[in-house]
Formats: sequence, structure tokens, C-alpha cells
Amino acid sequence: MKKIFSIILVLALSLLHAQSVKSPSNALEVNFKLVNNGQPSYTVNYNGKPVIVESTLGIKLKDKTALDANFEVQSSKADTFNESWKPVLGQKASIVNHYNELTIALVQKATNVKMNIVFKVYDEGVAFRYEFPKQEKLNYFIISDEETHFNLTEDYKAFWIPGDFDTNEYPYNETKLSEIDNAKLDKNTGIGMTTDLGKSRVQAPLMMKSPSGLYVNIFEAAVVNYPVMHLDVDVTNYKLTSHLVPNAIGDKAYLQAACVSPWRTIMISKDARDIVGSQMILNLNEPCKLDDVSYIKPMKYVGIWWEMHVGISTWDYAGSQNAQNLSSQDLIPTGKHGATTANTKKYIDFAAKNGFDGVLVEGWNVGWEDWAGNWKEEVFDFTTPYPDFNLAEVTAYAKEKNVKMIMHHETSGSVANYERHLDRAFDLMKKYDYPAVKTGYVGKIIPRGEFHDGQTMVNHFNFVARRAADYKLMLNSHESSRPTGYSRTYPNYIDAEAARGNEFNAWSVGNAPSHETILPFTRLLGGPMDYTPGIFEIKMSYYDKNKKEQVHTTLAKQLALYVTMYSPLQMAADLPESYEKHMDAFQFIKDVALDWDDTKILEAEPGDYLTIARKTKGKETWFLGAITDENARKSEIALDFLTKGQKYKAIIYEDAKDADWKKNPMAYKIRTVEVTNKSKLNLVLAPGGGTAVSFEPIK
Amino acid sequence: MKKIFSIILVLALSLLHAQSVKSPSNALEVNFKLVNNGQPSYTVNYNGKPVIVESTLGIKLKDKTALDANFEVQSSKADTFNESWKPVLGQKASIVNHYNELTIALVQKATNVKMNIVFKVYDEGVAFRYEFPKQEKLNYFIISDEETHFNLTEDYKAFWIPGDFDTNEYPYNETKLSEIDNAKLDKNTGIGMTTDLGKSRVQAPLMMKSPSGLYVNIFEAAVVNYPVMHLDVDVTNYKLTSHLVPNAIGDKAYLQAACVSPWRTIMISKDARDIVGSQMILNLNEPCKLDDVSYIKPMKYVGIWWEMHVGISTWDYAGSQNAQNLSSQDLIPTGKHGATTANTKKYIDFAAKNGFDGVLVEGWNVGWEDWAGNWKEEVFDFTTPYPDFNLAEVTAYAKEKNVKMIMHHETSGSVANYERHLDRAFDLMKKYDYPAVKTGYVGKIIPRGEFHDGQTMVNHFNFVARRAADYKLMLNSHESSRPTGYSRTYPNYIDAEAARGNEFNAWSVGNAPSHETILPFTRLLGGPMDYTPGIFEIKMSYYDKNKKEQVHTTLAKQLALYVTMYSPLQMAADLPESYEKHMDAFQFIKDVALDWDDTKILEAEPGDYLTIARKTKGKETWFLGAITDENARKSEIALDFLTKGQKYKAIIYEDAKDADWKKNPMAYKIRTVEVTNKSKLNLVLAPGGGTAVSFEPIK
Repeated sequence: MKKIFSIILVLALSLLHAQSVKSPSNALEVNFKLVNNGQPSYTVNYNGKPVIVESTLGIKLKDKTALDANFEVQSSKADTFNESWKPVLGQKASIVNHYNELTIALVQKATNVKMNIVFKVYDEGVAFRYEFPKQEKLNYFIISDEETHFNLTEDYKAFWIPGDFDTNEYPYNETKLSEIDNAKLDKNTGIGMTTDLGKSRVQAPLMMKSPSGLYVNIFEAAVVNYPVMHLDVDVTNYKLTSHLVPNAIGDKAYLQAACVSPWRTIMISKDARDIVGSQMILNLNEPCKLDDVSYIKPMKYVGIWWEMHVGISTWDYAGSQNAQNLSSQDLIPTGKHGATTANTKKYIDFAAKNGFDGVLVEGWNVGWEDWAGNWKEEVFDFTTPYPDFNLAEVTAYAKEKNVKMIMHHETSGSVANYERHLDRAFDLMKKYDYPAVKTGYVGKIIPRGEFHDGQTMVNHFNFVARRAADYKLMLNSHESSRPTGYSRTYPNYIDAEAARGNEFNAWSVGNAPSHETILPFTRLLGGPMDYTPGIFEIKMSYYDKNKKEQVHTTLAKQLALYVTMYSPLQMAADLPESYEKHMDAFQFIKDVALDWDDTKILEAEPGDYLTIARKTKGKETWFLGAITDENARKSEIALDFLTKGQKYKAIIYEDAKDADWKKNPMAYKIRTVEVTNKSKLNLVLAPGGGTAVSFEPIK
Repeated sequence: MKKIFSIILVLALSLLHAQSVKSPSNALEVNFKLVNNGQPSYTVNYNGKPVIVESTLGIKLKDKTALDANFEVQSSKADTFNESWKPVLGQKASIVNHYNELTIALVQKATNVKMNIVFKVYDEGVAFRYEFPKQEKLNYFIISDEETHFNLTEDYKAFWIPGDFDTNEYPYNETKLSEIDNAKLDKNTGIGMTTDLGKSRVQAPLMMKSPSGLYVNIFEAAVVNYPVMHLDVDVTNYKLTSHLVPNAIGDKAYLQAACVSPWRTIMISKDARDIVGSQMILNLNEPCKLDDVSYIKPMKYVGIWWEMHVGISTWDYAGSQNAQNLSSQDLIPTGKHGATTANTKKYIDFAAKNGFDGVLVEGWNVGWEDWAGNWKEEVFDFTTPYPDFNLAEVTAYAKEKNVKMIMHHETSGSVANYERHLDRAFDLMKKYDYPAVKTGYVGKIIPRGEFHDGQTMVNHFNFVARRAADYKLMLNSHESSRPTGYSRTYPNYIDAEAARGNEFNAWSVGNAPSHETILPFTRLLGGPMDYTPGIFEIKMSYYDKNKKEQVHTTLAKQLALYVTMYSPLQMAADLPESYEKHMDAFQFIKDVALDWDDTKILEAEPGDYLTIARKTKGKETWFLGAITDENARKSEIALDFLTKGQKYKAIIYEDAKDADWKKNPMAYKIRTVEVTNKSKLNLVLAPGGGTAVSFEPIK
């Protein structure tokens, strides 16, 4: 009898604590409930219709009772929050952070362990996380698995890449959830290494579209001291489950209470523009922790980089000799080394002449003769230049020309070695006045057994950002785990690659024409991407007539990417001589801004097209970028975002009539028109094409 | 027919290449032979009798053909080598390196991989290693196992500790090989953590004695970029097999040709003194690689350390609060913190007054509130002192008193974190004029999954030594893998613990009276040990009457250890007030030298007794130490090592008549006699006792 009474009491309490929270607009609604044997669960409705049906939540612990059942609700608390904040650099001068919050305080009966689940509901999406308050019964713990479910109800179309623990540089697949199958993946995509992919494990952000046209995006925010979350897809029932990236011995995360998980995010909208334009991931991160942000500045740069990709020069100085085992005097130069003092001066001259901020030089330091693919621990020391690269001379020349140098630190995955040298490397940068570093992580990670996306590496990438901040340096990481908004907290972490960049077009099957229409719905949600646009010499046959590779866009689309791919650090990636042949088109790259007062998503459909207009930070100029996939596209854009009553000179860089990404990619035309905010602009995009527009107020 | 001919040819070639090499004295003989299917093997004879019978050699590779069979001998080469070299600090001013060498160049038929096996035969032992020359068919490779065998023929008595991958701080077991059984080990020895021990895996050096009285010691030298070798014992057949310590994912070593394995050593003698006195391990290491050794100096030191072990004070400042998560201002002091500025000054005063070189301070830096046992990554930053420890004030005071400070870096096993902070930590040391650092590695290693004895950690310990050399700092590591002679190459790696030190006597079952008679046959072969002798207040009941723990020696034996335990860095580990009660005995510690022109092993029996005399570097003074195990001992020592014709004042610090390590450990007497090199000295050692003697020339 007593037992039955207890059960009834627990049931009553559970019902009492069934909790819900809505978005400020009321369109989204989250319901929390303890189900089965005290198991946390939630649902998400959009305009009253279920998008996420009952999905359980839980954490498995190593050597401890799992935190996935036997919970009671201790208390629940609703709250609302509406503020705005100013990013150091960003797509808008001021970002609104408006959400309703629901905190469910849980206690596990048997263990007395406390765990909170906190929901934040924005107009464009839901976020929730696990929180572990400081408590007697839980101090140190090891997460062996997170069992967060996202139970969908339909067979969505998904834009997905496989759940590789070591790289996010795959081309996107566009299939139904039911068709996801890593075994069927094309192996010939230029990915140098791969971990076991599982049958249907995919990476987040996972962008989806329902048969009825609802856009849903599942991602995460504020991945700090935690591994990256991939998603296991149940291809029959459309249920997604979190899959945390393990460490060398199979553990997922080492935590100490008080602590929190990253936010799990579900963006939902009938309008795809809400997702591309969302600042939700940034909003879910901690505010800026830096006192001094004066050194954090946007940079437009050129560099010794694409010439290696196209095969004109090499990173290494001495071919396949082992630089690490030889003293640099003993190396025999091949004559193909790109990072020479003389060549660097050429790029500095070009940067200075065209008003660029910086020059990147890759291959400046000893080690490239035997750098990748062998899991080698001590490759680079990050401080020893090749004999033909004179740091002092380069710095002096750059200073004279008012150009800043960007340092390059390729680690070849040997993070242990990089961390040992980091202070020395940053000291060198300060000595030679380099304000920014591009890091690289090609290859299997050392400490051996760790993955690029595990907790160890997430912590490493964030650590490098914090240490760079100690030196007032900006960081741009390549081959890192994809960002989840840490640049709000450490805005000196100015940029990252962490997706398939333009470089793949130089030496692999490349990036499909749809590629750049997907990235803003996925990778870019967590922060800017150093995509390295601006390739004018589209076909690699220009360099070697036997080469079939090419950039999968028109030249005009390369220009448009400077607007559609948000980044405060933008490369003009092609060679100076490529630009010198098209100075009229290059003018757009010279003009385009990097930091913005405002951003308008005008048109958006993942995998198909994207049109964005942005207003320059602190100025009245606007820039517009429009891109399409493999299909030609026409559209009429109302310029109502422009300032009322102001006349603008619009310079339109567009595909020529017969342009085509494959057959005739370099055909563009440039025209100038006068417009106001009442004007309409007719965009005509070639297959794989784009349009870039600059709007200069007429005084 | 052709096949048979081939077989005969191969057989003939094999026989032709059966190779042997003898020690300079001819007592030791090594025979190399390809056996079975081209498998390398060797035997070792001592005075014509087999000690190691046919034992095969081989290396297993990951994802590659094993290098353990199908070899042919390409060539063999004999050589002889006789030189002497001067250690920066050492047991002798000049060390003779005299051996005969045999190099067997092998090629594996199927793979065309080349591997050399090189033997060096000294008068006191055999060494051999695997060498991988630069070659086309072997560049990068991963060792999955080394299968080096040491096939003995008898059931030796062995002095062994279990093959723990994470600690070498076990008490010694003294059993026959046939009786080795880790399952029967006493669990209550004060070891805080342990890895899977296997059934009969033991650590090297493994000191043994045959039934007929032959001493055999199996160890290794020059463990550089390779894991530690433990030994699997076949308790039925007396066969030992190398067991390399794995990394997080089970691999043993990552190598790139050209490269070599460590030397595997087999010392053999009828006289135990040959083994204690051997410099063979140092000889097998590379010569000194430092240009500047001027800063490498012996140090006698006191420190804030033993008072924590006996419970008077604590390393932490604020009890069990989490220093890492609290700013140091928020910590609430317990009042028991040892490393205060005031207490440090007391030790500096004591050091200065008694002519000591240095003062160690442990617990000076923030983090000790939550430091060990939780596999926590970020515990210490190695640069932030507690609020009650003023670095500048301490440095100024020490300078005024002409005393050097010894820095302490406890890592709690988080090597990743230590390496990130190493430059900063060493910068701080230079800023505050600390010439030496004591490191600590208590707890499970981070990168997680790595072991203290794996390749990663071997590389770490050596890396810290090299980086310390960059700053002209001396290194003394605790809880490291045991040294194998790297201090010859980097003599700033002045000392290490890496065995069960005196500290265990303060809070555990302690160290048996035989302990210090074994260490010189094992641990000390690879380099000096920071054993921290000099405990005068023998019984812990002095500090707390409920305590049963005690040092397992007499006071006089503590003095003798300064001679029997070679170390150029010697602590007087007890509290100043303990010494102030026995200033007459303390005089020996004040007088004893740390660096030596010569060393004479006068008597030695592992597990029973040891008597050593040493001549001070550059002076005519001598010091003698004699120790015994739990048994009382008398012996007559001829002082013929003293300079002929010179009279000496000998001050003899010995056990009092009724002294006994257990019942009456602090009873000692001091007498002075005049002696010459014709004198004999009667030593009378109590159970667990010892005698220390200083010889001062009379002018």
C-alpha cells in the first residue's frame, strides 16, 4: 500500500512538473517530461505541429550510475531574456539575444546526483544543455556516452557529410535521411585520411528540409572542454542520436562539476533565410573575455599559397630530403621553393599596391621535406626559417610598404610538439611583428589515438586561441574542429577553415557548384570561414594542359563569395598575375568590406542559391553577393535595404551571357547603374555563376 | 636439386657467419647465430660456462613483416674500443670505456629490410642493440613488440619489483625466479596507483644470484625515443622476455630509420662489487651534448618537504578547496601551509649557517587543494605562487645568504599541461635565479592512456632535460621512468628519484632494512638517485604518538647513505630542529662530498650489505659508508685506498652498542682515530645499522 502510494505520489509530481516553454514569437514550443522510469525527455512543436517527438535525454558515465533514468524534478524555473551585444567583428554591429528559458532541476533518487536541463527557445530555434551544479555526490566524472535524441517524424532531405572524427572537409551529400549510407560514399574526394565512419553517422550542423518545406538544422554551440557531437541516423525511423567523438581510450569527456555540456541546437523555420541569418550559435556562447580587443582587426590578404596548390612552386625547399634530420645548411634546394624572400616581396608589393592588409607565407620554415602522412612527432619547430627566407628582411620590407605579415604554423597533426613550441613561436611572431597566425592540422593527431574532433583537440584549438590572446595575436585555424561560436568569447580567434575549402578545386574532384550555397547553412553557423575565394584562373589546365581540375564556379561567382561567405579575414587566393589580367573584376575584391554594420539575407535555399546584402561597418556603402548552384538563375532583388533618399552608384560584376562554370567560367561583365532604395536589380546568374555588386553613395 | 643446393648454400653461409666476441678479459663470450628459419639468436658464456643459452632476438612491426626470421647475414665486423672520458659530475674523475664490439649486418630476404645487431662486450657485462640503418625498404615503422629473450639455465634468486607501467616505487621482493608471482604481492605498500601487472612481469634492472653464487643483472641503457623494457619471466624455464611498455593504443614505439633500440645489458660476475661499481650503463650512452656545463654543480640541500610527510604542515594553502577554480584571493588559508615566506627564510638561515648550497620549497604554487588522484588536466600553472609565498622576497633573502633556491614543479601526471607551461615556468626560474628544478609526476598520465614508462613519457622526461639545458637549469625528476644513463649525454639531468625513496618510511610500511643494499645493484646503475637520506628523528611517533611508522634504519645508517647512495644532489631531508638536537652527527652531512675523484666498492652483497669509499673531487679527503640489512654485521676494512704515507684524521659515526633499527635506532657514537693506508678499520653495524667515516688528511 505504502509502495503504491509512493508511486502515485511520484506520478503526480511528475505530471505537476510537466513543463513547457515557447519562443518569443510563440511559434516554437518545447515540452519537457519525465517518461518511463524517470527518464528526461522533450518534444518540439512548430506552429503547433510536432517537429521533434518524444526524445529522451541522458548521459552515461564511466564507473558511475548513468544519468539517464530514475530522475525526479526538484524544481523548474522559467525566465525570459532580451539583450543585445556588439561583436568586435561581425555580420551586424549589434546582435539581439532574445529567448525564453526553462530550467529543469533534476535529482536522481538512487544516487542523489543533481543534473539540470536548461532550454533556451529563440524565434529561430531551440537550444538545450545539461548542467551539473557543484554538489556532494558528483565531482569528477567521465562521460562514456551522451544519449541525446532528436526524433524527427519525416524523411527529410539532408545536406550531410559523413561522421569522420578527423576531418570535416568532405563534399556535401544531398539525400533523404533514409538514404544516408557511408558505405556508398565516393572515395575519390581528395580526403587524405579518414577514421571509421560508421554506417550512417553524419556530422553536425545537419541541414534538412522536410517534404512539406520546413527547414530544420541540428547543431551545437559553445563546445568547450567537450568533444564534438556527431549524429547517428536511424534511417528507418528518422531518429538522430548524439555520437560524441572518443579519445584514445574510448572515453568521451572528462569533467568536474560545476560544469555544463555544449548547447544542442535545433533551428526550425519555414523560411530558410532565418537559418542562414541566425546569430543563435554566437548568442549561446559566453560574452567576450578579453579586456583588450584593439588588435583584432579584419584583414584582406594575399599569400604564397595557391601557387603551391596549382603546382608552380612547393612548400618544401629541398624536395624529399628529411629537413628535420638534416641541418638547414645541408639541404639541397630544388629551386621550386615558393616562400623565398624575393617572392614574398613580390606579394608584399602587390598587397601594398592594391590596399591589402596582409601577406601570408606558407612553407617559410624548415620541415616540409618530410612533413605529412607518417604520424611523425617532431616535424616543425615553428621558429627556423629556410635559408632563402629572411624574416628580418621580410618584416622590414613589409613595414616599409605598410603591409602586415601572416605567420603560418603547420603542425602536421603533432599537437604535442606544437604546444611545446607555442610560446617560442609566438615570441618569434611578436619579434617580427606578425599580427596573425594561420595554423594547420593535416594528418593523424599526436598524442596518438586522439582525433581532431575529440575533447583533447577541442581544448587544444581553444587553448591556442587563448594563448594567442596572451600575445595579442589573431588566430585562423585550418583542419580544426568546426567552430561553435567560441569567437564570441575569444574574438581574436578570428577565422577557421574546418570545412571543404576552395583549395580542393585545384587538385581533386573539387567542390560542386552547390557547395557554397550549403556552407552558410552549416559550417558558417558557428563562425566565419577562411574559404579562400577569389580564384580568377578557373581551370588548372592553364598551368598544365594535362590537368582536368577546375574551380566549379564562374569568375563572377568567386567575387560574390566575398559577400555570401562571411569572414573578417578574406584571402584573394589567386596569383597576382591572375589578378593583373582582370584588374576591372579585381576592383570588387579591393573594394569589398570585411566587417559589417548590417546583413540582409535576401534569398536563400540550401543547395540552390543564396543572395546576401551587407552594409559596411561605419560606412554607407553596401555590398551584395548572389550565387547559384549548377543551374542558371534569374531573380529580381528589391534594394529596399538601402538608405531611403540616398542615391548609390551600383557596380555590378556579373556572368557574361554565355558564361558557364564548366564551359566558359571566366566570362564576366561589369556595368554601373545608379540606384536608390526603390530600385530593383535584375540578377542573371549563369550555371555555377554569381553576381557581386558594390553600392557607393553618390555625394 | 637447385633448391637443395640453395639450402646447402644458405646453411654454409650461416655457419660461415656464426660469430663470436669476447670481453677484454676473455671471461665473457657472446656467440651470435641464425637459427631455425633465419632467426637471430645469441648465447653468453662466463668463463666457458653458459649463462644465457640460445635466445632468439626479433622485432614485431605493426602493419609490416616481423623482423624476427628469414634473415641472412650480410656481413659481420669485429672491433675493439678503449677510451676514457670525464663526467661533469660522477663517481670517478675519469671513466674507462673498454669493450670489444661485434656488428652483425642482417638482411631479411623477403622484404630486403636491413637490420644490424651490435654487441659490446665489457669485462663486467654484455650489451646489444638493434640498429636500423637508413634504407629504401624501411623508413617509418611502428614497433608492436620486441621479442628479445634472455634464457637462463638456473633458478636464480632475484631482487624484483612487479612490472607496473606507471611506478617503480615498489619495495623489493627477494625470491627465486620460480617463485615470482605478482598475484601474491602485498597490496599494502603505499603505492597510490597501479596498472595491470601481469602474472610474472617484473621491472629491470633485475638483479639475480645463481645457486652457485654468480651475479647476473639484466637492464638496459640509453632508452631514448623508446619505451621502458620490463621483463616477462617464464617461472618454469627461467626464460626472460622483453616486454615493452605500450602507449594509449597498444603500440610500443614509433621510429624512423636510421635509428637504434636501447642497449639490452647483461652484467655477469662472480664478484657482486663489479656490478655495483660498473659504469657500463653510462658508457653505453652518447657523450655529453652540451657545450656549456659550467652551471652544472653538485648541491647539498634542505627543504620544506619532510615536514609535510610527517604531518606538521601541508603542501596546500587552503585545505580541500579547489584552488584552480578559485582565484587565489578567495582561498581561505588553513594556517598549516608549509611553503610560507617566513618558513622558507628559516630554512635559508639553516642552510646558510651550515654551508648548504640550496633550499627546496614544495607547495609554493597554487593548485594543491585539488591536485592528485582525479586525472585532472589543469592543476598547476607553475608560475602562480600562493599569497603567503613571496618569490621576490625569498630570492632576495636567499641571495643575501648565498643560498640557491630549488624550484618545484609537481605535474600530477598532467604532462600535456606541463609542456604547455614549460617555457613560462623556466622563464620564471631564471627571473628569480633558481638554478635547479625538482619535477613530480604523481598520478595517471595526461595524455590519457599513456603510461609513465611508455615512449611518450620517456621522450617527455628527456625533453624536459634538454629544455632545462636551454635555460642552463639542472633537473631532478621524481616519479619518472628510471634513468638509463641519459645524464652522460645531458649532465644537467643531474638526478632522479624513480625508485622507492626514504619518504615511504614516513607514512607507509616503509622500506625494509635491506632496501638500501639493493638499490645500488638496480636503480642506481642508470644514474644517481635523490633518495633523500638524513632522517634523524627515526620514529614518526615523535610527531604523533599514534603513529607506528618509522625509518627502517639506525641514525648512523642514514649518514652512511650519503656515501653508499651516489648522488651529486643530496638532501638533508629532516627538519632543521631534528638536526639541531644532534649537531655532532649532523657534522658528517655538512662534511660529506657530492662529487668524486674515485670510488672503491669495498664490500657488496645485494640485500645484505654494502661498503663504499670515495675520494672527494679535487681533494685528499675520503668518505666511507657501510650499511647492513636487518642483521648486525662486523667487518674489518683495510684502508689501503688512502694515499700512501699520508696520515688522516678519521671521524667514525657508528651505531651505539645497543643500537637497533627498530628498538633503539637513534643511538650512535662518534669517535676519532688517526689512520694511514696501512690501517684497518673495524666496522660494527647494528641490525639495520651503518657506519659513516670521514678521512681528513692531517697536514
